[in-house]
Amino acid sequence: MLAEIISIGDELLVGQVVNTNASWMAQALNNAGIRVCQISSISDEQNHIFKALDEASQRAQLILITGGLGPTNDDITKHTLTQYFKTELVYKPEVFDSITELFKKFGRNTSRLSKEQAMVPASCIPIINNHGTAPGMWFEKEGKVFISMPGVPYEMKGMMLDYIIPKLKKEFHTQSVLHKTILTQGIPESILAQILKDWEDALPKGVKLAYLPKPGMVRLRLSVYGENNEQSQRLIANELSRVKELLADDIFGYDKDTLEQVVGQLLKAKGWSVSTAESCTGGSIAQMITSVAGSSDYYRGSIVAYANDVKQHILGVKEQSLIEFGAVSESVSQQMAEGARKVLKTDCAIATTGIAGPGGGTPEKPVGTTWIAVSTPIKTFAKKYQMGDQRERNIQRAALTALNMLRKELIS
Amino acid sequence: MLAEIISIGDELLVGQVVNTNASWMAQALNNAGIRVCQISSISDEQNHIFKALDEASQRAQLILITGGLGPTNDDITKHTLTQYFKTELVYKPEVFDSITELFKKFGRNTSRLSKEQAMVPASCIPIINNHGTAPGMWFEKEGKVFISMPGVPYEMKGMMLDYIIPKLKKEFHTQSVLHKTILTQGIPESILAQILKDWEDALPKGVKLAYLPKPGMVRLRLSVYGENNEQSQRLIANELSRVKELLADDIFGYDKDTLEQVVGQLLKAKGWSVSTAESCTGGSIAQMITSVAGSSDYYRGSIVAYANDVKQHILGVKEQSLIEFGAVSESVSQQMAEGARKVLKTDCAIATTGIAGPGGGTPEKPVGTTWIAVSTPIKTFAKKYQMGDQRERNIQRAALTALNMLRKELIS
Repeated sequence: MLAEIISIGDELLVGQVVNTNASWMAQALNNAGIRVCQISSISDEQNHIFKALDEASQRAQLILITGGLGPTNDDITKHTLTQYFKTELVYKPEVFDSITELFKKFGRNTSRLSKEQAMVPASCIPIINNHGTAPGMWFEKEGKVFISMPGVPYEMKGMMLDYIIPKLKKEFHTQSVLHKTILTQGIPESILAQILKDWEDALPKGVKLAYLPKPGMVRLRLSVYGENNEQSQRLIANELSRVKELLADDIFGYDKDTLEQVVGQLLKAKGWSVSTAESCTGGSIAQMITSVAGSSDYYRGSIVAYANDVKQHILGVKEQSLIEFGAVSESVSQQMAEGARKVLKTDCAIATTGIAGPGGGTPEKPVGTTWIAVSTPIKTFAKKYQMGDQRERNIQRAALTALNMLRKELIS
Repeated sequence: MLAEIISIGDELLVGQVVNTNASWMAQALNNAGIRVCQISSISDEQNHIFKALDEASQRAQLILITGGLGPTNDDITKHTLTQYFKTELVYKPEVFDSITELFKKFGRNTSRLSKEQAMVPASCIPIINNHGTAPGMWFEKEGKVFISMPGVPYEMKGMMLDYIIPKLKKEFHTQSVLHKTILTQGIPESILAQILKDWEDALPKGVKLAYLPKPGMVRLRLSVYGENNEQSQRLIANELSRVKELLADDIFGYDKDTLEQVVGQLLKAKGWSVSTAESCTGGSIAQMITSVAGSSDYYRGSIVAYANDVKQHILGVKEQSLIEFGAVSESVSQQMAEGARKVLKTDCAIATTGIAGPGGGTPEKPVGTTWIAVSTPIKTFAKKYQMGDQRERNIQRAALTALNMLRKELIS
């Protein structure tokens, strides 16, 4: 099955918004065995939308459209599709009910606009939006499927995962792709490539490897194209066990795992609690840990100690150490971790202190210099890292590195 | 002048790479007064490229192509363009010289591949690549301009800035576009639309308004197409002043401003420091504040008080209040804010306590119930919000709402 994605919205054409929706959708479709042959971003003008629909339906059997479904005047997709499919808007009570339901959650009442949003083209199947007020629309015409969704990412993603992908898989014969993603932290892509070279060169036909780097981590995606049968599954399992041998503990998880989830599970298994003492990461580690639902089972709190005297008075770092070694030092990072364990009464703690930049660097401690400490009931230790010169990425890398240091300690 | 962007490469269609090139180019073109009418990502198949070029040249006068110019086998753009323009490859010594020059910088010698890269279609003007080996190509045919560039972002950007944009500006009459983006927090899109309806309906011809919602905020973009002259600037300034009257303090900034930057500037101007006491936001507010370079001028630290006894023992929340009103209550949120001011020795503090979900809700306090408090040298106050049922968005919205409450207090 071939698909095309049409993203509607002037914000894409003036470069104000990067089209992350389209790449997310392309990935989701690929995983479902549907190939995308073109992605087009177009303006919200009726004739342009007509033209794009005509062109896309010449190439593809499935046309996915996002954008232009809000209640405001610049959103014209619904009216345009009503004309394109020569149908008319009708009131759908089930759509209105879903909007009422959603508004109730927020303690708000529906408005005149809600009634308008419940008007959908007669010839489409409305797709309920669990995260917003604009419904999606599923049209079929001459063997082609046209699906219209809002441009708001989480609304679109909800519809894709809850309804569209399952329905497409069920109703159309889609070629299978098996993916297994291996998640690593702390090894640069070029080093990984060296470690994996011989294995990669010997990969059997039909198995593909892709390196997907992100700040602070590299994902390795193994793909097998073909039928989703025992043979494909054995093929991917075989290669996976080879990678496990080569990378061992440097693999922190698979597929949709996150480092913060993995660390959470390890803490739970041990019955240990955790806290953080953050200087350069400024709360990022706490934010990652608490992004996991149920993290209150093992996470108690954090001290973000940006100012030196907060390190001293709340975490109990010795003034003498701050003077002698400076805030960015092995000793201070270790005292921060131990201080967090004590004051927040936890079994483990992670501490960070570094120069995120762009200011604050010195010849001895240039921007990017970072000390990370981990303290457990068994030991306290710290490591020095030299990050780069980009503030945002330094913070991100330091937070991931810190969580990974704790993970390695928990499995050691 | 109307332009189209064609991005060639399968990595875009499988969703492995987000098309940031296209949005960068769209922005650069817009700033030069060139409107982009479509962006297409297509596969590196010859027939698909032919089709895309035909379709694009029906709509636009300028067609910009990126990707498929490297020396590897899957890069077929140059051969395809040679066929499309019915020309042939010829050796261009100036291109070879530029490659030699570049290789010298890296201490490398040219290879057989370099000679091949210096072969370009006879009918094009080659564009020297100062950051890589593949030259760009500038074709003109029947009044239309076709420009091909490498897909490597910094190579493409170099060619655009050094050569293409200046040449386009010089040779073509380019229409100007002025944009002004107005940033709001806390008012849902549908309510904004009601407030702005009469004004929007009366917008003068040539001025366009777009609503761009993000979790927790709505951006409003005003665009004026025409000459970038006094008249256009007056036009946009007039409408902007009307929006300011209608939305007043609900506007937190413009264009590339962020809420955390704006709050930082206000704190700096007042000479006030800030801290946070976070329960449900789990460090997100601290993370946002410290994402701003130089935030140590006004930010001292945070207590992430996830466990109740951390609220008690570090922030000094009364046990009695926790028992009587519960952790998610007006009283506890206010005590957290005042506690943070005291223990972190800051002029202001923000506190959050809520049920981010998915667990932890009760009939009286369903998931999404959130109390946010702000404390300043002048007063302490709290507000209750009912967020939704998605953990990640609840945290994001609560963090933005909290920063906006402090902002409103700082300008009151």
